[in-house]
Amino acid sequence: MSSNYRNFRNNVPWLILFLEAVFIVLFYFLFSHGDESRSMVSYTAFQDVNHMVIFGFGFFLTFLKRYGFSSTGFNLLIVVLGVQCSVLIEDLFYFLLEIPHEDGLKRITKAAVSITAVVISTGAVLGKTNPVQLILMTVVEIIVFHMSRWINSMYLQVPDDIGMMHVHLFGAYFGLAVSSCFSEPSPRSEKNASTPKSALLSMLGTLFLWVFWPSFNSVLSVDNRWEVTYNTYFALAVSAVTAFTFSAMTTKDGKFRMAHIHSAVLAGGVAVGYAANRIRYPWIAMILGLLASVITVLGSYCLQRCLNPALEIHDSSGVHFTFGFPAVLGALAQVVLLVAENGTFLTSLGYSVMFHIGAFCVTISMALITGLITGLILNLKLFKTTPVTKYFEDQFYWEFPHLAVGF
Amino acid sequence: MSSNYRNFRNNVPWLILFLEAVFIVLFYFLFSHGDESRSMVSYTAFQDVNHMVIFGFGFFLTFLKRYGFSSTGFNLLIVVLGVQCSVLIEDLFYFLLEIPHEDGLKRITKAAVSITAVVISTGAVLGKTNPVQLILMTVVEIIVFHMSRWINSMYLQVPDDIGMMHVHLFGAYFGLAVSSCFSEPSPRSEKNASTPKSALLSMLGTLFLWVFWPSFNSVLSVDNRWEVTYNTYFALAVSAVTAFTFSAMTTKDGKFRMAHIHSAVLAGGVAVGYAANRIRYPWIAMILGLLASVITVLGSYCLQRCLNPALEIHDSSGVHFTFGFPAVLGALAQVVLLVAENGTFLTSLGYSVMFHIGAFCVTISMALITGLITGLILNLKLFKTTPVTKYFEDQFYWEFPHLAVGF
Amino acid sequence: MSSNYRNFRNNVPWLILFLEAVFIVLFYFLFSHGDESRSMVSYTAFQDVNHMVIFGFGFFLTFLKRYGFSSTGFNLLIVVLGVQCSVLIEDLFYFLLEIPHEDGLKRITKAAVSITAVVISTGAVLGKTNPVQLILMTVVEIIVFHMSRWINSMYLQVPDDIGMMHVHLFGAYFGLAVSSCFSEPSPRSEKNASTPKSALLSMLGTLFLWVFWPSFNSVLSVDNRWEVTYNTYFALAVSAVTAFTFSAMTTKDGKFRMAHIHSAVLAGGVAVGYAANRIRYPWIAMILGLLASVITVLGSYCLQRCLNPALEIHDSSGVHFTFGFPAVLGALAQVVLLVAENGTFLTSLGYSVMFHIGAFCVTISMALITGLITGLILNLKLFKTTPVTKYFEDQFYWEFPHLAVGF
Repeated sequence: MSSNYRNFRNNVPWLILFLEAVFIVLFYFLFSHGDESRSMVSYTAFQDVNHMVIFGFGFFLTFLKRYGFSSTGFNLLIVVLGVQCSVLIEDLFYFLLEIPHEDGLKRITKAAVSITAVVISTGAVLGKTNPVQLILMTVVEIIVFHMSRWINSMYLQVPDDIGMMHVHLFGAYFGLAVSSCFSEPSPRSEKNASTPKSALLSMLGTLFLWVFWPSFNSVLSVDNRWEVTYNTYFALAVSAVTAFTFSAMTTKDGKFRMAHIHSAVLAGGVAVGYAANRIRYPWIAMILGLLASVITVLGSYCLQRCLNPALEIHDSSGVHFTFGFPAVLGALAQVVLLVAENGTFLTSLGYSVMFHIGAFCVTISMALITGLITGLILNLKLFKTTPVTKYFEDQFYWEFPHLAVGF
Repeated sequence: MSSNYRNFRNNVPWLILFLEAVFIVLFYFLFSHGDESRSMVSYTAFQDVNHMVIFGFGFFLTFLKRYGFSSTGFNLLIVVLGVQCSVLIEDLFYFLLEIPHEDGLKRITKAAVSITAVVISTGAVLGKTNPVQLILMTVVEIIVFHMSRWINSMYLQVPDDIGMMHVHLFGAYFGLAVSSCFSEPSPRSEKNASTPKSALLSMLGTLFLWVFWPSFNSVLSVDNRWEVTYNTYFALAVSAVTAFTFSAMTTKDGKFRMAHIHSAVLAGGVAVGYAANRIRYPWIAMILGLLASVITVLGSYCLQRCLNPALEIHDSSGVHFTFGFPAVLGALAQVVLLVAENGTFLTSLGYSVMFHIGAFCVTISMALITGLITGLILNLKLFKTTPVTKYFEDQFYWEFPHLAVGF
Repeated sequence: MSSNYRNFRNNVPWLILFLEAVFIVLFYFLFSHGDESRSMVSYTAFQDVNHMVIFGFGFFLTFLKRYGFSSTGFNLLIVVLGVQCSVLIEDLFYFLLEIPHEDGLKRITKAAVSITAVVISTGAVLGKTNPVQLILMTVVEIIVFHMSRWINSMYLQVPDDIGMMHVHLFGAYFGLAVSSCFSEPSPRSEKNASTPKSALLSMLGTLFLWVFWPSFNSVLSVDNRWEVTYNTYFALAVSAVTAFTFSAMTTKDGKFRMAHIHSAVLAGGVAVGYAANRIRYPWIAMILGLLASVITVLGSYCLQRCLNPALEIHDSSGVHFTFGFPAVLGALAQVVLLVAENGTFLTSLGYSVMFHIGAFCVTISMALITGLITGLILNLKLFKTTPVTKYFEDQFYWEFPHLAVGF
């Protein structure tokens, strides 16, 4: 390890500490308690979302065989930084616009939902970034995500609870754009793989996400909360069934592939996010869940064979097909449902449809452009990019005093 | 692998997809939202039960060293299929009887509780069935369980929340009857065992079940919900203590056996299920928990030595003593408590006792008879029974692209 | 194994069973249901605490490579015994003082919070005690903790919800005093270490504790519950950031050490426990979280190098710096905040400060003295102390029928 590099490492903690100090100072000036008595969000719903981002995503990303410490540890680090950052940005915005503050619980819940975008993005660069890059990415992404949400909210009349559902779309494409700037790992690398034990731990995280997804979709809903819950539940249920079915169809000998199950069981929850409060009958949610799961499995098949090698994008945990495709499908379904519902009032419908499509385009283009810029910045020599040989390697960041052979 | 078998495998996904399509069509005709404003079930209680069946039972069954993927994965598959099936049967029943629908949350919760019967049954045949057999078993068992519940409810005046507690009894004996039709694994097979790591993961599932069991027993209670909760908690607590005690008593050198702990800590929760709303003082629940734990450990000792070899039943995860015996004890305790409580009004008491015993007999006999029939059907050549040498083997169903040595 | 020892082992289960029988008899005489309709504690908050002590602490302590069964199993055993014992002591106290009973849910919740003291203490002696010693320690510690709480409550006017927050302080120093009486493990022992897999399982427990800590701090709060929740959340968030920072600063090459992360991410939650309902602005909680995390990491550095070898105390899971130091900081912060808030009313303030310092001194001195006595008693020949060569060894207590090589 060069002295140059060691020097960099020694400065890193001070940078993080400085960032945290800035956050505390900003909290001093910006944060104030709201009126808690009329909170729209329940504490248990917040806890479900909190559990999802800390525990669910932390273990969802442990599928790499030598990257379990970093997956769970760095996930915790960026979530806690991102939540603080997100609360501050929201408070600053309310302060500048002189809108009265929302209650504290709602603000933390919104921050926890927003941070999902970052967590998804980190999935795309999993194992390829060092903590400083991750933290910078977190701060930039949270700021840009909030900006994109405000543009949607102010110019395109997207209600807040629906605008928040853009997290999956934004997170996936931001992450992919960042990932496209990083060197690809060696195709013969053995570290970019999972063992049965790491895949089982990842299943643990997946099941957590699966169970709590109805809470995630309904936590910020202002009306029809129950329908959002059931629709999400049934969409997830059909996704899970379809995941098994299509996994068996696309593999040799009709066996199941664990990676398919991990991604595709969640697809229904992602796809139904946008339109869950608009769906009157569960069978619509179920069809959406089925389609989402199908495009996830087929997407994983196509992307890994054709598109990713062509575009030279390496997507560590498959966020493109796990969160990107289902989110695009969900946005499409939202428009289709809108048209199907209000087929007659043509003028106002046209506006509504245009606004929805506009919000989709704003989100995805902001994600791609700022993601690309962030990726280029993160690859500056300044940030000591992890060498390709050290990708997917816990030992590069963590002490292993008593190294186990069988890991 | 013969081409015949490959052909079967290739058809399986289409069959599952067809089943799912049937479910969606039925949902279109049958499911309608109820009035959510007066729901008797809280969302958090539903989530607790959902967590139990998806996550708790999923990991409870991971104790086999080479069957972790199938334990958690197939558990998810049958739970989501079973819940959809259960909701549909209930809706069909309400539709035919022209009873107004219950609210959606209660219907899903009831479905999640009912599916426990199937999950318990799969424990008995764990590692011996292929997914098609599991799915067929799920559909048949859910239908029969609902039929048995309606017979109890309509002819024997069993209230709905108590009738639901027959899940353990029904699940255990249905599973045992199915299991009796399958070939026994080779006694020298090494795969039918656990490693310390798989036993620890199973402990994770067990602790989840333990923590959420009070929610499970109280979720459908209409009155005395708090008493149900405490009684279940204290019964579980005493069960846990007794499990350690009797485990040390029945093993060589007074060591603890992890399998005993897994089964016996939950016994109190099962046993107290029937009578929890009738128990006025926690000490009664505690004694019940103690007895349940004792018969579980002693039952495991006796069954594995004497009865199972004689009856030629192989019970993979010991559902007979984990869920069957404590449920029988619970049903008995219910009658004893009834007699102790209403010692004087002899005529009406006689009817009550007869109805309780009748409900018990109906449940257990329907479970055994239909279980046996299901087992015989599942062993038809049509279903390509898993060969005995491939029992307890993830690799038979799952891709292992990067096979780890130390698994 | 000598026949003498085997004889001891054979008697152990009967002793535990006798203890449980005593508990059931006492429950018969003492426990009665309260009025549940006006419960101050919500069932979900109780479940969060229950989850923490059973599941969170159970897996938090699995970091030792050969002690996973005992960590989770014995944790369950002492929690269930301790909760029963705690409920009985509280009921006895209310009975003797002729105070009307609190509702059952609150009583169980208080018991679950109290048992945290014992769970923390067992962390200090993890791997060095046999089950009988653990059980005796549990019973003694719960009794003494309640006594210390009553002294604080009756003579020093400490409100009940604040007095309960002494669990961390009491647990840590009681555990250290007990630990000081046990032989130290051989410094060359390889068993007193973690593998990457066991550290990851411990991370699972840690994340559970992290997520539920706001519930733990707020469950018994009578006022300002929301503020307690946010303050705890932000303190934990800053702790997590600081944990990574200081871990990188104190290790060679600027790598992170998993043991630091495990301890220090929770430090903020512990420190903020005392004063959370008094903190008006989150930035104060954040600074407290930062300081707590700093003293935890630096404390772990100093203690392991200097103090522990000098004092000959072996602290298996580092409870001194994980729970002891942050709790002392929290108690200090409480006094500082009190002074900062009421700077003018000097006389009454002086009393308040004295009462707070008095409660702190009572708690810590009772913990140290009774801990030392308990440690001395536990080392009597009667209790068959585990030989030093069998420390940190599951196989000494558990059957390993099919021993896996790669454990």
